[in-house]
Amino acid sequence: MIELLPDERLDHLLGKEGRIIQSPTVFSYSLDAALLAQFVWVPIKQGQLVDLCAGNGAIPLFLSYRTQGTVTGLEIQPRLAAMARRSIQLNDKQGQLKMVEGDVKEAGKLLGYGLYDVVTCNPPYFLAHESSNRNMSEHYTIARHEVLCTLEDCIRSAADLLKQGGKTAFVHRPERLLDLVTLMREYRIEPKRMQLIYPKQGKEANMLLIEGIKDAKPGLKVLPPFIVYEQDDTYTLQMRKHLDV
Amino acid sequence: MIELLPDERLDHLLGKEGRIIQSPTVFSYSLDAALLAQFVWVPIKQGQLVDLCAGNGAIPLFLSYRTQGTVTGLEIQPRLAAMARRSIQLNDKQGQLKMVEGDVKEAGKLLGYGLYDVVTCNPPYFLAHESSNRNMSEHYTIARHEVLCTLEDCIRSAADLLKQGGKTAFVHRPERLLDLVTLMREYRIEPKRMQLIYPKQGKEANMLLIEGIKDAKPGLKVLPPFIVYEQDDTYTLQMRKHLDV
Repeated sequence: MIELLPDERLDHLLGKEGRIIQSPTVFSYSLDAALLAQFVWVPIKQGQLVDLCAGNGAIPLFLSYRTQGTVTGLEIQPRLAAMARRSIQLNDKQGQLKMVEGDVKEAGKLLGYGLYDVVTCNPPYFLAHESSNRNMSEHYTIARHEVLCTLEDCIRSAADLLKQGGKTAFVHRPERLLDLVTLMREYRIEPKRMQLIYPKQGKEANMLLIEGIKDAKPGLKVLPPFIVYEQDDTYTLQMRKHLDV
Repeated sequence: MIELLPDERLDHLLGKEGRIIQSPTVFSYSLDAALLAQFVWVPIKQGQLVDLCAGNGAIPLFLSYRTQGTVTGLEIQPRLAAMARRSIQLNDKQGQLKMVEGDVKEAGKLLGYGLYDVVTCNPPYFLAHESSNRNMSEHYTIARHEVLCTLEDCIRSAADLLKQGGKTAFVHRPERLLDLVTLMREYRIEPKRMQLIYPKQGKEANMLLIEGIKDAKPGLKVLPPFIVYEQDDTYTLQMRKHLDV
């Protein structure tokens, strides 16, 4: 029996059988996490994966439906890490998923250097001083703004964790594409696959998925555009297929 | 009366009333040029524009339907520059368009530093050693391979020519996105607008349009995806609108 705190609720993992503990006032995962978990290359049978800035564990949970490898989530906020741990128990995934509480800047020291096949990260999107909805809880602020870690910290740590030839994938706002690719190259991660997410046909992209390989040769592929909603605000066929809904 | 050489023919400018002298064995413009000329920001009433690697003058001709400013094409191959000059005469655009024969690496020296509002460039796509269709004429080889100029030469020259706040737009293969944005930033051109061209729905992007502004603040927008063909190989509505066909 898993205990829910008063402000928590049990949500479905979009398109999956699993459940996840969320809280409207503390933290809920967004579509970005679901899309990143579906976009990233994963080993099917075995391997070691890490999710940085893991929040309430949405990406590790989603990944567990695609790989039999182990996934370690790293999260600095004790409250979110605790939610994630209870969700892992709830889905009976303790053998495959684990959460470590700690700072993304120390990921190599905490989890080991050069050991991992895959690192995912849905980092804070906004600069520390940028206003988004800063009327949110401190938990949201930390998850959404570069208060405790920057994009560079995330990319450096992903590079620290990866084996040679290992893959790392990020989701971010398209405005940060240049920072992403510049930093990836600086830390020996060559961008290899990119996909742009458009909310609707005819609209500008509002999300970017990008995957790089440690010490790979240059050569970027841009996957077909991904469009989330039809004009009538229902999910596109592409989106429904993507999520197995 | 304009003279055509034996291997030349008179083609329509896609979607426009104008005509252009082309040659299947020497050089013909491709869709890339038409899309770049439509994508780039232009001043409507007046201004000075340059097209680097102008070939047989397709981009200057296309631009003349969007702006009343003057457009100078720079082309190193005498045969192509001569074709372009005859096409300019043919369309009676001598008052607005001119061709200069010369090396893109010397663009600033030839045309003047810091004077221009807009610079376009459809550069050679392939590295000097890369194989594409190298069974083509030497004219094609020079136009398609970085034999006489590299991407860096083109970007450096665009930066040389531009006023502060001037705009420059390139078309290239998506594989070169990282080189493009890295070099643009190196030469003080901040990438601001990008559009990916997909041959069909569900296919990887095969072309990239990108525009930067000299000495601008960071912040990239990714425009809606542009899809050229329907599944049955007819032009999409988007493409027909784009070309005013």
